[in-house]
Amino acid sequence: MGRKRFSQMNCGIAQALDALGDWWTLLVVRDAFFGTRRFSDFEKSLGIAKNILSNRLARLVEHEIFAKVDAEYRLTPKGEALLPLLTALRDWSDEWIFGRGAEPVIVKDRRTNRRLPKLRVTDADGNELTRRELRTIAGPGASEETRRLFQRR
Amino acid sequence: MGRKRFSQMNCGIAQALDALGDWWTLLVVRDAFFGTRRFSDFEKSLGIAKNILSNRLARLVEHEIFAKVDAEYRLTPKGEALLPLLTALRDWSDEWIFGRGAEPVIVKDRRTNRRLPKLRVTDADGNELTRRELRTIAGPGASEETRRLFQRR
Repeated sequence: MGRKRFSQMNCGIAQALDALGDWWTLLVVRDAFFGTRRFSDFEKSLGIAKNILSNRLARLVEHEIFAKVDAEYRLTPKGEALLPLLTALRDWSDEWIFGRGAEPVIVKDRRTNRRLPKLRVTDADGNELTRRELRTIAGPGASEETRRLFQRR
Repeated sequence: MGRKRFSQMNCGIAQALDALGDWWTLLVVRDAFFGTRRFSDFEKSLGIAKNILSNRLARLVEHEIFAKVDAEYRLTPKGEALLPLLTALRDWSDEWIFGRGAEPVIVKDRRTNRRLPKLRVTDADGNELTRRELRTIAGPGASEETRRLFQRR
């Protein structure tokens, strides 16, 4: 079997990964969340080669995660919607890599100055769910392959 | 300036990306969430070359995201804790790539058979927050560079 391309996979996770391109791209998005908008500021912050940065920014504009306005790269609503993803990455390393009390950054609610609660996958009533409490079924946009896959499970 | 390595960055997002390795790794983790445990089943599901898969699985074991038990790769608690990350990726593509009504898969609460609510970044009272309502400050594990960065901001 040939290598599947992420862009051809009937899967939300693969499609998100395809749109994001590679890890560098997500760090560019992270910096945009901190307010970075200019090429030279992304370059300084990331220590990334100009050609790689230029390529990643073009991809982010193409996927409408950034809009280029004059010399600035600005998050679009599709880009702003990556906040839970960035938060999930930070939460996970705070807990499993750095550990409590060794977090490099802390994110607070500007209004109350309180730390954000950890992101949790919950049921409709707000109770946390684990993998075993979930059931995944083929959705309305499932391909034949996806349908077969979830019938077998 | 030389290329920074993710593993040297004082940032939870970069560290999570470093542990996860590359996009393929996350798809391996996704399959583990669906119950896949054996090399040949990952291979079949992903259409990935044996050497790449073998390398990714070794990395996941090294980072204690998987534990190898006999011939099975099983999610550890650190691996199970990636559920919000996978959910954030799926939520985002469901909304911004496929669109409502065209989701390839649907995840339900097994007990109630209801769809999971979307993952949201909220304050302590459960109100959704956007980027502009957040403030990021240097944490207890901040490097000198991180401290300087957040002082300027």
